[in-house]
Amino acid sequence: MPPRNAFYAQSGGVTSVINASACGVIETARQHPDQIGHVYAGRNGIIGALREDMIDTGQESAEAIAALRYTPAGAFGSCRYKLKGLEENRLEYERLIEVFAAHDIGYFFYNGGGDSQDTALKVSQLGERMGYPITCVGIPKTVDNDLPVTDCCPGFGTTAKYVAVSTLEAGLDVRSMAESSTKVFVLEVMGRHAGWIAAAAGLAADHSGDPPHVILLPEVAFDRPAFLERVRDSVDRFGYCVIVVSEGLRDANGGFIADGGSQDAFGHTQLGGVGPVIAQMCKDELGLKYHCAVADYLQRAARHIGSKTDVDQAYAVGRAAVEMAIEGRNAIMPTIVRKADDPYQWEIGAAPLSDVANIERKLPAEYITEDGLGITDAARRYLRPLIQGEDYPPYRDGLPTYITLKNVSVPRLLGTPFDI
Amino acid sequence: MPPRNAFYAQSGGVTSVINASACGVIETARQHPDQIGHVYAGRNGIIGALREDMIDTGQESAEAIAALRYTPAGAFGSCRYKLKGLEENRLEYERLIEVFAAHDIGYFFYNGGGDSQDTALKVSQLGERMGYPITCVGIPKTVDNDLPVTDCCPGFGTTAKYVAVSTLEAGLDVRSMAESSTKVFVLEVMGRHAGWIAAAAGLAADHSGDPPHVILLPEVAFDRPAFLERVRDSVDRFGYCVIVVSEGLRDANGGFIADGGSQDAFGHTQLGGVGPVIAQMCKDELGLKYHCAVADYLQRAARHIGSKTDVDQAYAVGRAAVEMAIEGRNAIMPTIVRKADDPYQWEIGAAPLSDVANIERKLPAEYITEDGLGITDAARRYLRPLIQGEDYPPYRDGLPTYITLKNVSVPRLLGTPFDI
Repeated sequence: MPPRNAFYAQSGGVTSVINASACGVIETARQHPDQIGHVYAGRNGIIGALREDMIDTGQESAEAIAALRYTPAGAFGSCRYKLKGLEENRLEYERLIEVFAAHDIGYFFYNGGGDSQDTALKVSQLGERMGYPITCVGIPKTVDNDLPVTDCCPGFGTTAKYVAVSTLEAGLDVRSMAESSTKVFVLEVMGRHAGWIAAAAGLAADHSGDPPHVILLPEVAFDRPAFLERVRDSVDRFGYCVIVVSEGLRDANGGFIADGGSQDAFGHTQLGGVGPVIAQMCKDELGLKYHCAVADYLQRAARHIGSKTDVDQAYAVGRAAVEMAIEGRNAIMPTIVRKADDPYQWEIGAAPLSDVANIERKLPAEYITEDGLGITDAARRYLRPLIQGEDYPPYRDGLPTYITLKNVSVPRLLGTPFDI
Repeated sequence: MPPRNAFYAQSGGVTSVINASACGVIETARQHPDQIGHVYAGRNGIIGALREDMIDTGQESAEAIAALRYTPAGAFGSCRYKLKGLEENRLEYERLIEVFAAHDIGYFFYNGGGDSQDTALKVSQLGERMGYPITCVGIPKTVDNDLPVTDCCPGFGTTAKYVAVSTLEAGLDVRSMAESSTKVFVLEVMGRHAGWIAAAAGLAADHSGDPPHVILLPEVAFDRPAFLERVRDSVDRFGYCVIVVSEGLRDANGGFIADGGSQDAFGHTQLGGVGPVIAQMCKDELGLKYHCAVADYLQRAARHIGSKTDVDQAYAVGRAAVEMAIEGRNAIMPTIVRKADDPYQWEIGAAPLSDVANIERKLPAEYITEDGLGITDAARRYLRPLIQGEDYPPYRDGLPTYITLKNVSVPRLLGTPFDI
């Protein structure tokens, strides 16, 4: 059988290491020219396939592809664009198959979160129904760490490391100043429904009394009096209070504490501002001077503080995806399987896409302290390995030498435009 | 002459490298036991001297002191507490001399910004008038880079590096997503009156069109229509717009764009929120989806991305301060003298405290582009050397091994309390 081409796309919010997965995909595919011909990437994710706007990764040198391993964000562009259900918008799926057929795409690699695994699953189902042979492999990616089955999600480890290091550093700063100045420091981090990122800040604490003194998780309904009492207690005992709050913090009725009032393309509410809300509460109710940082994109782009574990895993799932595809394993996603906590040992496993699509994994109850304001030792055992090792990018003139690819377009073969 | 003791204090907002200066002071003093006896540090800065609450640095091992070189924030505590003028509050200065005399303090090292250099100057003047022999040496420190005479201020280089790296990384993120999601990203950085930190973000741009596309400086009155036009133009041309805004941005009447409404102990207005204000403006006026990060303390505590130039200079001014004191040079501050831009060459100089006290150095006009929204090549030539080199801290278990000192108190010799 002659080699067939592969299509790779990045989906949803990008991470510091999604390009490391792309690197794994492309480098591994290049080692198998008998099975895989060209590797095309979607320009701006799946939108690129719908528009027949693809990038020929074959135009990039081996050095350029290798540099993806340490370059954050999405080298080919990503998108927030969720394909609807097969019945609702069959046209989009048929268009995908049309474009894939025109370019002899036999392998579909979709690098994303739960929504994207769902799309990959649907493409595989439609390919089957339409009699178009295509092997669909999902590649896990999300800073939110909310995919099921896999031990963790590539992208999370580096964000976790960034948040833990930042909490440690800012905590030292506040401690220095608390006698005569700022008493309360609030760090707002990502995590819409799952508190994994906020929980990771807890790794900064080595001893009892170390910051963070309070972690506010989306899994725990915000209890204002209990929170304020804890802040007051922390300031009384230690002189200051460091709070890490997840953007998705909710009240007892399930309403977001900070609701920006608008929605993204996935129908998700755009959040923002919970950090300042919490900080202002400490000033208004307790009279405490505060500072507040909002990490926002910095936390998911912070490749300069890359977790080696995370980078290695991101590359490994990219490589494994290609190997599984070559073996003909369809509608599957490589996973991380934990073999031991300390020292951390892991290997690559696999999960059917139907087991991971559209399922959000939240922090389990045993990772949250009884008072709901901190993490347990079990959480630490789980989290600690994921931030191990420093994978620094190379620098020139004081800045990381992140690569921008040429991103040469694949000539269009279909004359038909497609409106998104 | 028998050795006399030294008093060292950290003042004002701490930085990632102020402890490297402390390391330089203590290690150098330990090399001169004939001239300097004990090195006492003020617990929480100058407040510690007023309260006779001092730390005996002699109780710390050589290893612990060496670890200060890579530990951010203020290891002995700092404070926001400005001594008033000699005539207004002579009592405070007399108390300082009383405490110094009780502990045979012959050397006063004050590690801070412009306000602190003013205090060091006044102590030297009072010592003279009261006939108490004390050698006062200021040690420069401020992330704001706003001290005059010196080429730069230790603390700034690492903050500049953090801001430039963060802008580069977040810029890649936004570029990846802009086709279908966020079009405008705003990063709010420090800089109340001087735009050095915001300007440093400009180093992230390698080519025309690279982020940041707009830099909003406190030196340039905010021109809303011109700003919005530039954002629109950037989104039209590049698909997105990255904006770095200084907390101290002001309108044409000199009012802060974001005024938190409260003041600190120095009478400075507490700022905050200009990033969200600017971002919301882009949404309201241009209909663009935005994200906004507020770096806050993270930017001045980010020792994990330390500039080697900055760390070396911070240590060098600490060492030089002790050497100058031993030589009997009074009312002086070691400075950084630039000898060449590329490759950067510098040496230690000295400035009389009267030349540096209470003077803020702003961005010169030739560092700001004519439109007021960016930096010039001259600014790049000045800034680039200051972020050169990566000085990484050691890690254990995925986190930097920052030190917390024992901070053993020096026994009090005066029975008298002193109310701050």
